[in-house]
Amino acid sequence: MQYRSIIRILGLLVAVFSVSMLPPALVSLWYQDGAGVPFILSFVICIFVGLIIWYPNRLYRRDLKVRDGFLIVVLFWLVLGAVGTVPLYLASETGMGLADATFEAFSGLTTTGATVMTNIEALPKAILFYRQQLQWLGGMGIIVLAVAILPMLGVGGMQLYKAETPGPVKDNKVTPRIADTAKHLWIIYVSLTVTCALAYRIAGMDWFDAVGHSFSTVAIGGFSTYDGSIGHFDSSAINIICVVFLLISAVNYPLHFAALRGKNVLTYWRDPEFKAFFGIQLALVVLVFLGLLHSQVYESGWQALDHGLFQAVSISTTAGFATDGFAFWPLYLPILLIFSSFIGGCAGSTGGGMKVVRVFLLFLQGKRELNRLVHPRAVYAIKLGRRAVPDRVVEAVWGFFAAYALVFVIIMLLLIMTGLDNMTAFSATAACLNNLGPGLGEVAAHFGNIPDASKYLLVLAMVFGRLEVFTLLVLFTPAFWKD
Amino acid sequence: MQYRSIIRILGLLVAVFSVSMLPPALVSLWYQDGAGVPFILSFVICIFVGLIIWYPNRLYRRDLKVRDGFLIVVLFWLVLGAVGTVPLYLASETGMGLADATFEAFSGLTTTGATVMTNIEALPKAILFYRQQLQWLGGMGIIVLAVAILPMLGVGGMQLYKAETPGPVKDNKVTPRIADTAKHLWIIYVSLTVTCALAYRIAGMDWFDAVGHSFSTVAIGGFSTYDGSIGHFDSSAINIICVVFLLISAVNYPLHFAALRGKNVLTYWRDPEFKAFFGIQLALVVLVFLGLLHSQVYESGWQALDHGLFQAVSISTTAGFATDGFAFWPLYLPILLIFSSFIGGCAGSTGGGMKVVRVFLLFLQGKRELNRLVHPRAVYAIKLGRRAVPDRVVEAVWGFFAAYALVFVIIMLLLIMTGLDNMTAFSATAACLNNLGPGLGEVAAHFGNIPDASKYLLVLAMVFGRLEVFTLLVLFTPAFWKD
Ligand SMILES: [K+]
Ligand SMILES: [K+]
Repeated sequence: MQYRSIIRILGLLVAVFSVSMLPPALVSLWYQDGAGVPFILSFVICIFVGLIIWYPNRLYRRDLKVRDGFLIVVLFWLVLGAVGTVPLYLASETGMGLADATFEAFSGLTTTGATVMTNIEALPKAILFYRQQLQWLGGMGIIVLAVAILPMLGVGGMQLYKAETPGPVKDNKVTPRIADTAKHLWIIYVSLTVTCALAYRIAGMDWFDAVGHSFSTVAIGGFSTYDGSIGHFDSSAINIICVVFLLISAVNYPLHFAALRGKNVLTYWRDPEFKAFFGIQLALVVLVFLGLLHSQVYESGWQALDHGLFQAVSISTTAGFATDGFAFWPLYLPILLIFSSFIGGCAGSTGGGMKVVRVFLLFLQGKRELNRLVHPRAVYAIKLGRRAVPDRVVEAVWGFFAAYALVFVIIMLLLIMTGLDNMTAFSATAACLNNLGPGLGEVAAHFGNIPDASKYLLVLAMVFGRLEVFTLLVLFTPAFWKD
Repeated sequence: MQYRSIIRILGLLVAVFSVSMLPPALVSLWYQDGAGVPFILSFVICIFVGLIIWYPNRLYRRDLKVRDGFLIVVLFWLVLGAVGTVPLYLASETGMGLADATFEAFSGLTTTGATVMTNIEALPKAILFYRQQLQWLGGMGIIVLAVAILPMLGVGGMQLYKAETPGPVKDNKVTPRIADTAKHLWIIYVSLTVTCALAYRIAGMDWFDAVGHSFSTVAIGGFSTYDGSIGHFDSSAINIICVVFLLISAVNYPLHFAALRGKNVLTYWRDPEFKAFFGIQLALVVLVFLGLLHSQVYESGWQALDHGLFQAVSISTTAGFATDGFAFWPLYLPILLIFSSFIGGCAGSTGGGMKVVRVFLLFLQGKRELNRLVHPRAVYAIKLGRRAVPDRVVEAVWGFFAAYALVFVIIMLLLIMTGLDNMTAFSATAACLNNLGPGLGEVAAHFGNIPDASKYLLVLAMVFGRLEVFTLLVLFTPAFWKD
């Protein structure tokens, strides 16, 4: 392991990330909310710590191996989460202890969007901006992680996408390749953010809210600057904008890249994962809409469609925005949507969950098994579109599925041990492992009232989810640390 | 499909099964409980219906193909369940509607052991005996199903055990082979039952209770002749006897056969599934014992050990007997045990769940995936003991796992739609799909108070569980019914 090179990179990372403390400080200056000091302080601490870590190792620029990659990725998220905690912990307005600040920072960065805060609108603008910005930066990290790094590491079958990463094709030089991919995809990400912010502004949000919500929308994050989330605005136009940008953001980014480069919208429809995603979304919206009509939760069919569409997309893409307490719908609807968040967004998007392509592969494999029972001697290949999927990839997806289920069960059990009831533990684990956000039961509105131990467990769940389980799990194997 | 041959067999089956109505009638005569008439009536109806179905098809004795096998197996359980419902529905003492009688009969035959009855001890002995006998007969069916038929059909990776079926090795003649296997294993099953009944009698049960509980113990069924289940006897000796016979019954029957034939107890220890089963049981007992000690549910350590050992084994082997309301333990313990029931007994035993060998294979595959991440170019085989497991088998096990999870989610959602709360729906689905028995929440004590629709859904779950999901699922594919 190239420890000193890794430490060098992390030091640099902390120093660079410290710059993210400045925009909230500027926001504080602009709005004169008096909450700028913790951010300036955090900036100084972080740049100082980062440089101290970096300086003695600055000459260690060895080529990194795949195995170093796992360690860097895990440390990347842990270190950024820790750094992100600092201003939240320092700011007196939040009244946050360490557990709360850690939870909020990791929830932001992993784009989970679960919050421990209440009476959010009363907070200084700087803190509100910071939370939204955490999600946006987290989303940037996830795109590179999901599109360039996890395929390279071969986590959970994502080697499937190895060839599709935009950028130079040669595998030898890892760092410039990742940088090139990042550049291409971040342009899309930033353009989406700008368009989304403009759309929100036109639909009636003020600039602060428009920018803030565009951050958490394209990141599929779910943080809001109001307790009432998107529902605060009580506007069908804003709901629709949010739905549209969530659907766009939950699509595989290299697919966006390919469609833009080829200037051909049909590119989307040729992608099997996109079609599966579209089908799932459509089915969920119809089911939820019919369920709401049948149970007469809303007075008019239009309201049922408005709220049903919004919640179905928001939960199943793992955004977790709310218009209306879906916890008060007939129980099977929220449970259905929470189950759907296990599917989540497409691979290579900012969405969470197990990813559409993996669930689709499991479905194809299940179908193959049924066919094999009827015709035991026939040979069936698993195909994504016209492309046969190597058995190696399918096996990795199965491993991912089992590891995901195991982590879910263990964290849910441990949460119950910390004193949560069954419903709260189930929904909180799903909400954090799938990087979804809101839960049911005690955590329907926010995560503030659960014990600190539960909060730390849920932070673990968020990281497991964001790192696609295996990236973190592999660090616990003795083989990883040998030679 | 050889429909008329299949109908011939089912007619014969109903006629033969009608004989099972006579022992309860004799019990009624002996105890003069006045409940004999429904059983005599059921006997007459069933033998009559069976012969009417059989007679016009009696000459259709074609060789059956693998595909006919799926249909026969599914119809076998559905028809026996329906026949088993008759006397419960006819007996006025039970006061049962059709949903209740169906639930109770299927719960008996599939050895699930969930009951809709309350105040059981007040029922006539004939009905009590009939329930216990249903489980015992169900257990006989399961052994043949699990050891001879599912491996032949190749369901969920069970082709792994194809070569190990006792009896003549040539695959050509299916029927005599199954008959031979059944003969060998039923001798073990009956011997275990007799020994278990004697042990219970010596430990203080009367003959009626001893025989009745031996039936539901070796079948890993969980029905009792008392509301208080095994806890009614309040005897550590009886608890230990139950634990021992459950552990024996949850072991692969061909393994018992091999150990007996070779007169070598080490045969057990050479079996990887047995070792995994033993390890899981030990870990669960220790965890539950420590959990009970820590939470001080019981006054003495001895009581904690007594109840902890009993409940850990009873739930994890999917028997579902109770000594004490484990629903009142700290929530994480019952949830842990309900999760453990997903593992269940060994393949080829009367236990339910996904079976130890399958979970063990998933674990090995997960380990392989982690190793592959560290050494992407190395070749790793999955081995059970010294034997490499074909990829085909591993894939089938994955398919099984996914189908199991899917059926679980769908039935749980549908249960919530019928009005159950989250905890009740979760535990009831687990209890029935794993053929376990007791749940938590509204179904902690019994299943009597839930809606009829929920009961029918749970019957479906029991059948899915007992038929290892795929056997039933394959009937829903168009390919199955083609040509
Ligand atoms: K989210
Ligand atoms: K049972």
